[in-house]
Amino acid sequence: MGLVVQKYGGSSVADAEGIKRVAKRIVDAKKNGHQVVVVVSAMGDTTDELIDLAEQVSPIPAGREFDMLLTAGERISMALLAMAIKNLGHEAQSFTGSQAGVITDSVHNKARIIDVTPGRIRTALDEGNIAIVAGFQGVSQDKKDITTLGRGGSDTTAVALAAALDAEVCEIYTDVDGVFTADPRVVKKARKIDWISFEDMLELASSGSKVLLHRCVEYARRYNIPIHVRSSFSGLQGTWVSNEPRGDRKVEQAIISGVAHDTSEAKITVVGVPDKPGEAAAIFRTIADNEINIDMVVQNVSAASTGLTDISFTLPKAEGRKAIDALEKQKALIGFESLRYDDQIAKISLVGAGMKTNPGVTAGFFEALSDAGVNIELISTSEIRISVVTRADDVNEAVRAVHTAFGLDSDSDEAVVYGGTGR
Amino acid sequence: MGLVVQKYGGSSVADAEGIKRVAKRIVDAKKNGHQVVVVVSAMGDTTDELIDLAEQVSPIPAGREFDMLLTAGERISMALLAMAIKNLGHEAQSFTGSQAGVITDSVHNKARIIDVTPGRIRTALDEGNIAIVAGFQGVSQDKKDITTLGRGGSDTTAVALAAALDAEVCEIYTDVDGVFTADPRVVKKARKIDWISFEDMLELASSGSKVLLHRCVEYARRYNIPIHVRSSFSGLQGTWVSNEPRGDRKVEQAIISGVAHDTSEAKITVVGVPDKPGEAAAIFRTIADNEINIDMVVQNVSAASTGLTDISFTLPKAEGRKAIDALEKQKALIGFESLRYDDQIAKISLVGAGMKTNPGVTAGFFEALSDAGVNIELISTSEIRISVVTRADDVNEAVRAVHTAFGLDSDSDEAVVYGGTGR
Repeated sequence: MGLVVQKYGGSSVADAEGIKRVAKRIVDAKKNGHQVVVVVSAMGDTTDELIDLAEQVSPIPAGREFDMLLTAGERISMALLAMAIKNLGHEAQSFTGSQAGVITDSVHNKARIIDVTPGRIRTALDEGNIAIVAGFQGVSQDKKDITTLGRGGSDTTAVALAAALDAEVCEIYTDVDGVFTADPRVVKKARKIDWISFEDMLELASSGSKVLLHRCVEYARRYNIPIHVRSSFSGLQGTWVSNEPRGDRKVEQAIISGVAHDTSEAKITVVGVPDKPGEAAAIFRTIADNEINIDMVVQNVSAASTGLTDISFTLPKAEGRKAIDALEKQKALIGFESLRYDDQIAKISLVGAGMKTNPGVTAGFFEALSDAGVNIELISTSEIRISVVTRADDVNEAVRAVHTAFGLDSDSDEAVVYGGTGR
Repeated sequence: MGLVVQKYGGSSVADAEGIKRVAKRIVDAKKNGHQVVVVVSAMGDTTDELIDLAEQVSPIPAGREFDMLLTAGERISMALLAMAIKNLGHEAQSFTGSQAGVITDSVHNKARIIDVTPGRIRTALDEGNIAIVAGFQGVSQDKKDITTLGRGGSDTTAVALAAALDAEVCEIYTDVDGVFTADPRVVKKARKIDWISFEDMLELASSGSKVLLHRCVEYARRYNIPIHVRSSFSGLQGTWVSNEPRGDRKVEQAIISGVAHDTSEAKITVVGVPDKPGEAAAIFRTIADNEINIDMVVQNVSAASTGLTDISFTLPKAEGRKAIDALEKQKALIGFESLRYDDQIAKISLVGAGMKTNPGVTAGFFEALSDAGVNIELISTSEIRISVVTRADDVNEAVRAVHTAFGLDSDSDEAVVYGGTGR
């Protein structure tokens, strides 16, 4: 029995009852002979409430102070969890990100972990303690200021600690049973995936699946830490994310892992761009200089009569205003005719390593959409993913049609509870 | 213009509006040319809410984790306050107790400050910042664990920082206008005291006055840091507590500083104690071994016929049960007949350095009580204080009678708002 890192999201520790339930589960792992390190998020809506308060006192909260504020949430949950464990007769010690040795850069509100030096955690474990660590937070290497890791940061804390402590698994506890072949709120027949490779999970995460964030999976792949995503409300096996299916489990890699969708993006079309070298570069340099992340990019074939073309790209809706303003400012320099902004779009993606060796997948995907009467506006592909942009109104029907077409539907009709994962 | 330390209690920063009001006051001090260090308590009832949560997950919260939990409250208020100040266009940085160099012993939940090394605060000030420090918390010297200073700890943080930074004054902002000659909720004609000596303030604090805690005043006296207790809701001068009245102010030391009362104590009478050497020692050794603090002690003259005497003492009601149990266990060894427990008592104290040179004070005190029909059960005196124990029902009438008898009543009838001071 080795060391396990368990991470519990905000919905799992939303109140005193939740904390006691989680404490019992942690003690069970300890009784089974494991050394246990627990990473915990802030209780329920604590973080949102703190953000509300910050906005009330200052319209633009400052980075350093904002991080100090937000990290109070995990201090509360980790201390309560340690108390609840002690109340069950086991020894527990809680540690802030700083005490746990989570060293980050100095980019407040979205710091990156640059080192983990878990000396105090190791000592606590060696002395027979369960170690409870505040997720989502660290301390900056140069200034020794408190930092936060941004959305999904607690998952990254858990994987980073698992890597630094050479854990045998990082268990991510949440309020769903695992990773599904599609969002069960949209597809009633979505199936829980027993095992999925890091690569497919990365594509799902970047295509709209919210169970695990891209950064956390990327970190786990780099250090080869198996992740087990599972429910804190049941004792069921969840979804294993790793390089290889575990030796004692016969899990065949599916051709298609799942269908993801994302309605958080908007589309900008730059109309009437001269079809000559340097034009696309000028557009995307403008976007990059404003630190806006873009996703899909498509350039139409130019009309021979005018020598003009259109360039479309997608980006988070939240950045739409900024992108439009930036491009308008450079209009004369870039030399386009106009901009079109559309936030009524959805992206639907089919993910699976099997499509590399199964040439019919792309055709089957488009046929399924066509049969469902869904129009395709943009297409983008990677080696193991195909994504299309459609009207937002069509998204549910499109996802269901593709899910059925690729034989992903479950045989049973059992209801699945699904929600967010905290952070 | 020198350095000032300002401390704001929980009631002053109870919500976003309060935080913005306090931020404005801090900025005003900065604009007046001061270097400003601010010590802040947790918002409103935050601490009590956290204690409630702790009791829900564990009946006996553990020291180290309990401290970690409680310190989250000040992290929230200090970060919000720093944001609010920045929003007014001034630079502010917040610091935890640990970051501010508040070094304590390892006694969780009631740690004592053993050193203050405010290097980061000094740097922040030198760079033109306003420094915001979390009250009530520190870090233990040996284990580097987070500690809390117990009730009133934020005031002690403020005075300790003022001493370490050689501040010209420590301003304690609260929701009352200062220290009064009696509790204004009981005595409508109580007057605000303009200046009071450390010694008289210490006696008032240990006699039930709640505006400043004994430990904080003791610390200020040791390092000769003037304290200015004042309201965060008005711009009025409050009460100065110092060795000497300030040079530019003509304040005559009153014979009597004020009347304090305390209804938080109970009385235990040990009945039928053999009147021989070692008996009292055996009783109070038992009490001390159980870490119970006692206040007044009175031994009656023994009855010649029986050779037995009674010993009475007062102690916090919260420790009553523990004291009774401890004494019962030692009954055979100590050899008393029975125990009587009475928690319907009140202590009334008259405080003033002037009583050293005014021999009529004691007599006047007893006459005032007698005229008001209040029976005296126990008497205890120090050089500058007389205290009596009466029935709890008589306390308000007794305080008013003494206040009037010593000429402390104010001429005006203006209403005074009075409340707690946070912690």
